[in-house]
Amino acid sequence: MERLSDSDRAELLPGLDGWTMVEGRDAIQKRYAFDSFIQAFGFMAQVALVAEAMNHHPEWFNVYGTVDVTLSTHDADGLSRRDVELARRMDQIAAGAGQA
Amino acid sequence: MERLSDSDRAELLPGLDGWTMVEGRDAIQKRYAFDSFIQAFGFMAQVALVAEAMNHHPEWFNVYGTVDVTLSTHDADGLSRRDVELARRMDQIAAGAGQA
Repeated sequence: MERLSDSDRAELLPGLDGWTMVEGRDAIQKRYAFDSFIQAFGFMAQVALVAEAMNHHPEWFNVYGTVDVTLSTHDADGLSRRDVELARRMDQIAAGAGQA
Repeated sequence: MERLSDSDRAELLPGLDGWTMVEGRDAIQKRYAFDSFIQAFGFMAQVALVAEAMNHHPEWFNVYGTVDVTLSTHDADGLSRRDVELARRMDQIAAGAGQA
């Protein structure tokens, strides 16, 4: 898995909804807000199945209805296409999971 | 839900396995280490069901096989008996979930 090239970044990253670069690290982050723990953990459970199938896992923090996610690719020492793909899948799942 | 008294703390907290006080905050923390994301998220899913039933939720961070947990009671502005109870339940679940 290769790190994204400059042209890949220019093409792919602006299309992600609400994801921002992490300061001081080649990674992207997003905060998802749900109305309840049930919704937040339901989202996480769906993402967990997708992530395991992709063999690409998020770093994430949850408290009640909030889920803070960071994506980066350990093997690439930075962002790869897998992060872009997982970010898109997470947004799709959140849209169906009652994001506040 | 009341904050733990000094005598409650002296009685209850030393009995918890591997939980330590968070610096600068009336909360306890523990790191659970599993061999895989499947085991770590399986642990989290079991804890989520228990936490929702208790109406008492953890703050937790996961990356791959690691789960960092912080427990405190918002309504009590610090540690309560619910945190001790959830800590014990999490340890029981981890013991059955293949903790490394």
